[in-house]
Amino acid sequence: MSEELRVTVWNEFRHEKTDQAVKDVCPEGIHTVIAGHLSEQGVSVRTATLDEPEHGLTEAVLAETDVLTWWGHMAHDEVSDEIVDRIHEHVITDGMGLIVLHSGHCSKIYKKLMGTSCQLKTREANEKERLWVIEHGHPIVKGLTEYFEIPQTEMYGEPFDVPAPDTLVFVSWFQGGEVLRSGCCYHRGRGKIFYFRPGHETLPIYHQPEVQQVITNAVGWAAPAGGPELTFGDHPPLEKID
Amino acid sequence: MSEELRVTVWNEFRHEKTDQAVKDVCPEGIHTVIAGHLSEQGVSVRTATLDEPEHGLTEAVLAETDVLTWWGHMAHDEVSDEIVDRIHEHVITDGMGLIVLHSGHCSKIYKKLMGTSCQLKTREANEKERLWVIEHGHPIVKGLTEYFEIPQTEMYGEPFDVPAPDTLVFVSWFQGGEVLRSGCCYHRGRGKIFYFRPGHETLPIYHQPEVQQVITNAVGWAAPAGGPELTFGDHPPLEKID
Amino acid sequence: MSEELRVTVWNEFRHEKTDQAVKDVCPEGIHTVIAGHLSEQGVSVRTATLDEPEHGLTEAVLAETDVLTWWGHMAHDEVSDEIVDRIHEHVITDGMGLIVLHSGHCSKIYKKLMGTSCQLKTREANEKERLWVIEHGHPIVKGLTEYFEIPQTEMYGEPFDVPAPDTLVFVSWFQGGEVLRSGCCYHRGRGKIFYFRPGHETLPIYHQPEVQQVITNAVGWAAPAGGPELTFGDHPPLEKID
Amino acid sequence: MSEELRVTVWNEFRHEKTDQAVKDVCPEGIHTVIAGHLSEQGVSVRTATLDEPEHGLTEAVLAETDVLTWWGHMAHDEVSDEIVDRIHEHVITDGMGLIVLHSGHCSKIYKKLMGTSCQLKTREANEKERLWVIEHGHPIVKGLTEYFEIPQTEMYGEPFDVPAPDTLVFVSWFQGGEVLRSGCCYHRGRGKIFYFRPGHETLPIYHQPEVQQVITNAVGWAAPAGGPELTFGDHPPLEKID
Repeated sequence: MSEELRVTVWNEFRHEKTDQAVKDVCPEGIHTVIAGHLSEQGVSVRTATLDEPEHGLTEAVLAETDVLTWWGHMAHDEVSDEIVDRIHEHVITDGMGLIVLHSGHCSKIYKKLMGTSCQLKTREANEKERLWVIEHGHPIVKGLTEYFEIPQTEMYGEPFDVPAPDTLVFVSWFQGGEVLRSGCCYHRGRGKIFYFRPGHETLPIYHQPEVQQVITNAVGWAAPAGGPELTFGDHPPLEKID
Repeated sequence: MSEELRVTVWNEFRHEKTDQAVKDVCPEGIHTVIAGHLSEQGVSVRTATLDEPEHGLTEAVLAETDVLTWWGHMAHDEVSDEIVDRIHEHVITDGMGLIVLHSGHCSKIYKKLMGTSCQLKTREANEKERLWVIEHGHPIVKGLTEYFEIPQTEMYGEPFDVPAPDTLVFVSWFQGGEVLRSGCCYHRGRGKIFYFRPGHETLPIYHQPEVQQVITNAVGWAAPAGGPELTFGDHPPLEKID
Repeated sequence: MSEELRVTVWNEFRHEKTDQAVKDVCPEGIHTVIAGHLSEQGVSVRTATLDEPEHGLTEAVLAETDVLTWWGHMAHDEVSDEIVDRIHEHVITDGMGLIVLHSGHCSKIYKKLMGTSCQLKTREANEKERLWVIEHGHPIVKGLTEYFEIPQTEMYGEPFDVPAPDTLVFVSWFQGGEVLRSGCCYHRGRGKIFYFRPGHETLPIYHQPEVQQVITNAVGWAAPAGGPELTFGDHPPLEKID
Repeated sequence: MSEELRVTVWNEFRHEKTDQAVKDVCPEGIHTVIAGHLSEQGVSVRTATLDEPEHGLTEAVLAETDVLTWWGHMAHDEVSDEIVDRIHEHVITDGMGLIVLHSGHCSKIYKKLMGTSCQLKTREANEKERLWVIEHGHPIVKGLTEYFEIPQTEMYGEPFDVPAPDTLVFVSWFQGGEVLRSGCCYHRGRGKIFYFRPGHETLPIYHQPEVQQVITNAVGWAAPAGGPELTFGDHPPLEKID
């Protein structure tokens, strides 16, 4: 992957400070695990967390970010609306990619971009998840086999109140009887958004090679395309109008 | 169309009070023209406007509304966020249909449901618009020929910063050189949304039979489907998990 | 449902003659079960089978058919290409609806309309299927709860080599670990197509109320929309071109 | 672009031999113009034409082709069904990209992959076409401005009888009053397909920089993704089924 690609890995980073079970899995935070993996792929990575000033997402940081990954869970409401609007603007206007992971489905920024409640069913029962590839020609499934498993995980099930994705990449099967559209691609403005379900604060899911592969692929897919800017408002005619 | 279908026609109703050119076209308000046409189709219609208490959209009114049509232009910001959230909830949770007309593309409710800026190009030059049918099997194009024209209108052009519609029903050609995705269907939650471009405050567009036909068809399409409710949160497993 | 709606229920009708297990479930053929249910809904139903002249699908029959339902399994190759082209023409040009059931995914007409192999995974193990509603505002899910189960069935799993549906209505969970996009809507030309997975020749699936409800709903959705005809070829300009 | 990427540029190559006006624009064939441009981008290019044995598309050639571009016009029917099936198989099963140019919309391979008639409106009047970018974050619009023009061209207009594209990238405006979905992306099996309207046998359209840019971008987008193979048929269960 291009070394010029600049990724910012955002993490709420609260569980890891307060909960020993979380600390055991990711002692330095989920962001450190994700950032470490991406650095090994040759992209330029920085991290940002909720308790930094401006949540670590200043205008300057976002201006230098091609793709932002988002992990949050217990403190969605503490993210300031001003920063959410700033991220939204960078996605729509500048084409910044956004990768929303796991419980990030209830983040303010994802809900704002989707326009729906983004709620879903849940169950904490350490059950098996099997992610099936649906769109076999999509760059996000590069290097995968036709399915992969998360041995023990929280269940997320339909209804998942999101718009039908522009491309549905994965559907998950859960041991207890549910399914989920678990890999969903969206174009919004000049930006691209990928929601990817796997991940949990007390389970070593971001250490799993298939999950890391998908995140790497998604970063490549979500990078800005270099297309035209969006210009609105009054526009002169091409043709003479009588 | 079913007489049981209950439509609420909402209008900002400001232009009609302050601008003689608008008053000349729709002396009693755009809502009165749209409501009059729909009443003739046998649906049950009421109207609501910005300056009524709660903009005429009380919980009781929305609870009795199957489809809401929306026209606004100069006072989008005066619509209260609380009412916008209420409408949003009725679309997502109760499946109320929403038909957004013309300059309603910049309304708070449409932007909230789309998740994007909903901006587009404009030009006021009284030029010709030709709307081409794109999806010939869709119920919204019932009774139409393959295109119809608005003889003189304001131009709205791409980029139209909205999500790719679930179904693209019309594309408009404008005399001056632009195109627009001018009839766009969306599923959101249990609800259905249709954006339809034609309409102007100083031109008799809602008196045109093809435009009336599309609005009638759209009301039928957007009516609640009677499908399952959305239930979220904790869910017991079907299968035994060890 | 409108009494004017005319449905033709097509069945290969071979299993029922040669296989006692099939005969036990549908002694007079699967078509008789489906047609009986639809007749009770007030639509006008006729049946047609493979071994009739022109497979029962003469030009006259198709000209009087609003929606055709298709069930085939062991004799796909015996359907003549001429009849397949005739059905294709009625879907694309006349807007005839087509509902493809279960093993009909490998029929010539479905493969021709999809443009792909339409293959999928299978397993005959009498396992449980759970169909989850994905698009809660779609008319095909009217009257359903958020999922329903087929107690014992053959498994059909991804990859299902079809185009991404215009609307994904159901996703199935299978006891053995697979998922399937099991309710898929497509617009093609002036016609609408719905693929619905449930059904089996030796299991009483078409006697199940939820399955019957979906087929009824699908007939209503797939009926011709009454939109403009498709006209191709040379077209005079609107504007003067210099 | 990767030097490892292998493109085969196919051309009917009949007009260029028989028609002086065509010979004047592309004396060595349209394929030579397209291939020349792509070679300059650093991809590995070969050409193939109708009158070569097996139309130049032997199993060996296709096995070494990542992306195939297709231009045909007057001799669609002379392409053998066997070769069409071979190309189809390489798209669906091996993920070979396919870029269909201009009058290639009526080629056998495009019609087979789309499942529809692929017909559209036409007019030969040397009028202006303006292509508007619709999806601003798509890799195919890299390096473009928000629209570009073809100064003089044949008109192609809606209805364009194709499935709604997975991603609609361009919509064309024509001087005479028509529109067309003129840049359309499709996933089919493991492959990706892009239809791009510009091109004409007597006009120097493939010499135009924006058109060349789009073809280059499309080759990059359509290249095989390296995802899992499609495996069908009997599949063992993950879970024990009693």
